[in-house]
Formats: sequence, C-alpha cells, structure tokens
Amino acid sequence: MATESPAQVSADSPTHAQAPVFAAWVGRVEAMLERSLPGAGQAPQRLHAAMRHAVLGGGKRIRPLLVYAGGAVLGVEAEELDAPAAAVELIHAYSLVHDDLPAMDDDDLRRGRPTVHVAFDEATAILAGDALQTRAFEVLAQDGASAQVRLAWVQTLAHASGVAGMCGGQALDIDATGREQSLDELARMHAWKTGALIRASVRLGALAGGAEGATLERLDRFAAALGLAFQIRDDILDVEASSEQLGKTAGKDVAQAKSTYPALLGMEGAKARLAEQRQVMAQALSPFGADADALRALGELAVLRSH
Amino acid sequence: MATESPAQVSADSPTHAQAPVFAAWVGRVEAMLERSLPGAGQAPQRLHAAMRHAVLGGGKRIRPLLVYAGGAVLGVEAEELDAPAAAVELIHAYSLVHDDLPAMDDDDLRRGRPTVHVAFDEATAILAGDALQTRAFEVLAQDGASAQVRLAWVQTLAHASGVAGMCGGQALDIDATGREQSLDELARMHAWKTGALIRASVRLGALAGGAEGATLERLDRFAAALGLAFQIRDDILDVEASSEQLGKTAGKDVAQAKSTYPALLGMEGAKARLAEQRQVMAQALSPFGADADALRALGELAVLRSH
Repeated sequence: MATESPAQVSADSPTHAQAPVFAAWVGRVEAMLERSLPGAGQAPQRLHAAMRHAVLGGGKRIRPLLVYAGGAVLGVEAEELDAPAAAVELIHAYSLVHDDLPAMDDDDLRRGRPTVHVAFDEATAILAGDALQTRAFEVLAQDGASAQVRLAWVQTLAHASGVAGMCGGQALDIDATGREQSLDELARMHAWKTGALIRASVRLGALAGGAEGATLERLDRFAAALGLAFQIRDDILDVEASSEQLGKTAGKDVAQAKSTYPALLGMEGAKARLAEQRQVMAQALSPFGADADALRALGELAVLRSH
Repeated sequence: MATESPAQVSADSPTHAQAPVFAAWVGRVEAMLERSLPGAGQAPQRLHAAMRHAVLGGGKRIRPLLVYAGGAVLGVEAEELDAPAAAVELIHAYSLVHDDLPAMDDDDLRRGRPTVHVAFDEATAILAGDALQTRAFEVLAQDGASAQVRLAWVQTLAHASGVAGMCGGQALDIDATGREQSLDELARMHAWKTGALIRASVRLGALAGGAEGATLERLDRFAAALGLAFQIRDDILDVEASSEQLGKTAGKDVAQAKSTYPALLGMEGAKARLAEQRQVMAQALSPFGADADALRALGELAVLRSH
C-alpha cells in the first residue's frame, strides 16, 4: 500500500524527532480503519470495496495524527484515541469521495489513484461516501471511553462536518466559483471547508483528556492557525509543484479561476501570511512543554510540507 | 405546506381513533425539524434552502410517528422523543435526496414537487444530503436525554443507516437492477433498505423508556413485520395506483424490470403475504394493551394505506 509517511521531511526539522511516534500512531489508525470497514468479501461487495478503496488507499493521516497529538498534550494514551482518530479520517475520506464526483470537482485522480467514481461508478461513490459518514459516528459511539466523552466526540465531529463546517464550506466554495472572493470570504470558506475538521481533530484528542477552559481554547487557537497554514501552503504548492509531486492535478486552482492566497496577496504576501500562522502556533503551545512536541511537529509539517 | 396527514383513512379504521394523537406528534416533529435546520437567510443560502426543501416539503412522517408510538408503549412522554423523531426523519430525507440523483434512481418528482437536484442542482443535492445526515447525529447527541440513552440512540441510528442497513440495502438494490432477485434476496434487500430504519424508529422510542430483553424483542418483531408490510403494500400500490395518488411516478418498478412481491408471488400471493405480516404485528403487540394502540394503528396504516 502506497501510504505516504508524514515523517518524510528533512532531518533538521522538529518533525524528524517525532517520526517514530507518528509511525506508531499511523500504524494504530490504519489498523483501526481496517477493523472499522466491512470486509470486501461480504455483500454488497461493490459498496464495501469502494469504501475500502476510499479509505485504505494511503493518505497522510494528518487528522488522526492531530487527534493523538492533541490527546498527548493531556497525557491521554494512544489506545484511548483510536476511535476518534479513525472517525475523523472516515469523515475526511467520505468528503473526498463526494468532492471528486463529476457534479462537484470532477476529479479523476486522488493520491495518484483513480477516484472512487472512476474506479467503480457514480452511484457507488455516492453511497460509499454516505456509508463512510455513517460509520464515523458509529465508531465514535461504540464502547470505550465514558459516555460523556463519547457524546462530546459525536457533538464535536458532527458540528465540524455540518453546515457551519465542512459541508457549509464546500457550499461556500461552490457559490464562489467563477468570481473573485474577498480575503474575508476566502478565510471563512477555508475555515469551514478544511479548518473545522482540523480543529475538531485536536479537540477530539483533548476532550478525551478532560481539557476545558483556557487549555481547550489554546489548543483550538493552535489548530485554527494550523488549518489556515495548511491551506495557504496548499495554495502555494498548487502554483509551484508538479502533478507528480502532489498526486493530483496541479495548477487546477488557476485553471478554474478560484481565489487563492497567492492570487489575492501575491506569492510573497501568501508566504508572509504563512509565517504569521507559524508564530501563532508557537505562541499558543508555549505553556505546554514537551507534551506538545508532537503537535508542534505537525504544525511545522503544515508549514514546510512539499506535497 | 402540502403535508399529507397519515390520519386520512376511513372512519372505521383503528387509525381513525389515533388521529388526534398523530396530528399532535406530527406537529411536534415538524416544529423540531424546523428548529433543527439552518435558516434559509444565512449563508450558504443555497445549501440551506435545499436542505429545507428536502425536509419540510411534506411527507407522512411515518418514522417519527413510530418513534413516538414506540416510546408510548413504555410510557415515554412525547417531548422526550422530539430529538430521535427528528433525527430519523433527517436520515430518511437525506436518503431520498441521494436516491433521487441522476446517477441513482434519476427521479424528477417527489411528493408532487421537483426533487432537490431538479429544484437546485446536483452538487447542492449531494451536499444537502450529506449535511442532513450529519445534522441527524448532531440532533441525537444534543442535551436532553441521559448520556446513556443518547449514545444508544446514536448507535441504533448509525447501525440502521449504514452498510448492514439503509446504505447496504440501496447497494443491494443497485446490484440487482436488470436481473430477477429471488424472494430471499428481495426480502434482505428491503429489510436493509427500508426495514432497518423503520425498526430503528420503534427502537429509538423504546430505548428512551429503558426497554430491554423480551419487550425490546417483541417491539422489534412488530417493527420488522411493519417494514415488510409497508414494502409489500408499496409494490402493490405501484402496480395499482396512478401517479397522481402516489405523488411520484407509478409503474416505475415494472418499467425498470425490478423484482417486486407482486412480480414474484403474483398479486394474490403478495396480498396474502401482506395479511401474514398483519397477523405477526397483532401477535407481537398482544401483551401490551392500550399503550400500544398507536403502534397498532400505524401497523394498520402500513397495510391499508392507499398512497
């Protein structure tokens, strides 16, 4: 399986020191995802195979890593976080399957492989996405953590995935296609479309450790900056990188006349905005000491990644 | 709003006596659905308007009625059941939006009105369905019942909506298109596609009353028979009724060469099978006395309905 390791960064990066931890966490969530998906041999086979294609086909598992790293700040053991780590990835995977559909972004390629509607068919892709979302909430609700924590998880993930989160952001993105967005509009669209799930990831981990008040607020400030940094870096990469490096069609934002940070701020302006987020992240985590090293490394990864 | 009342049956039906109760319950769930949906004036307006079109455009609200009626057997007050009643209808509504899509059943008409992708567009319909599913779980998890009951609700609804329930049944239905299914295949497909959500509805109500063991098992036997009766009646109506009465395209099953109970058993055989389910329902509820009158009336409605 062509899983890209998030630890593929230079040896002088803070991410490098966390590589063994990240590899262990990725291993945990891969196993949990495998256990959470229906077997490809059971009927309806085509639906199950499509779900497995969507989820088990690689991906950096950034959101699960944020769940584990968010929990680590509060001293939560990784095995207590397998369910929310898998759930947030199931939501992410379902959103990609639906975003790739012909009526949406019409993408044929994802992580260097055919998208679900290309590998299977459109009806199966719609259903597979639907069933992946359902499974996310089923996994969150299953036995493990206390009832109170599991309910807080369901509330957090549902809020982040819905109309004032991922789905709403996708709708704002569609509404904006073909016209230039203001910087505020662009920021809100991304804060909902991709930021909400990134913030939810850190929060899911922190909630398992009983985080509240100022601690939860600081972690959320970190996660919001990380989400923005991730998006600015994505926009920059779309301009600079080749399709081969990205594993998806590069230059597509320009081709579709989508508003991006480089388009609105210029490339230097976008890079300055990215550097600002790096500062916000560092400040937000400053009280936490070494327990936040994994989160810090993920923040750096968002800023420095080349794919 | 052209809400069809489930109480529109003849005066000698057991449903007639329950009409005021049903009207009150429908009023409750309509209000809860209205509260659960984002306002049409907030951005992204098009998504919100599509969600409201999908949910507030009438419908018999059979599943919410089953939630309230299932709870009534255990003496649960209606106000304790507004959340699961709305949640199950949000799931049902999302499934209709996605089933109607061009890549699925390609239906232009639903309850006598344009389907969501016709009234809006395909991308909005995909997203609206996604967001409605999310909202269902958010509504279930919100404050109200005990954490234990809310978690059991999430587990029940997620299981019924997923790969061994509604989504899986839809996939089995697609897999079977263009070939004749055996009676066993047809029964499993319907048990998953529509039966699972009907059983979940009764169970959601019963769980709020602390039902377990033999009580839960009897209520589930009733609900399974009701789901089957509902489907057989649907197949019969598709052959016998006009499009005007149904509010959707009649005769479509035959046109699409889909397996149906009349096709596999003949019309008389299908009617006999329907009568059997009526017996199973009556026996399952026999120990419960007058507290189960609302459920009994809904069972009769499934058997006798003309639309």
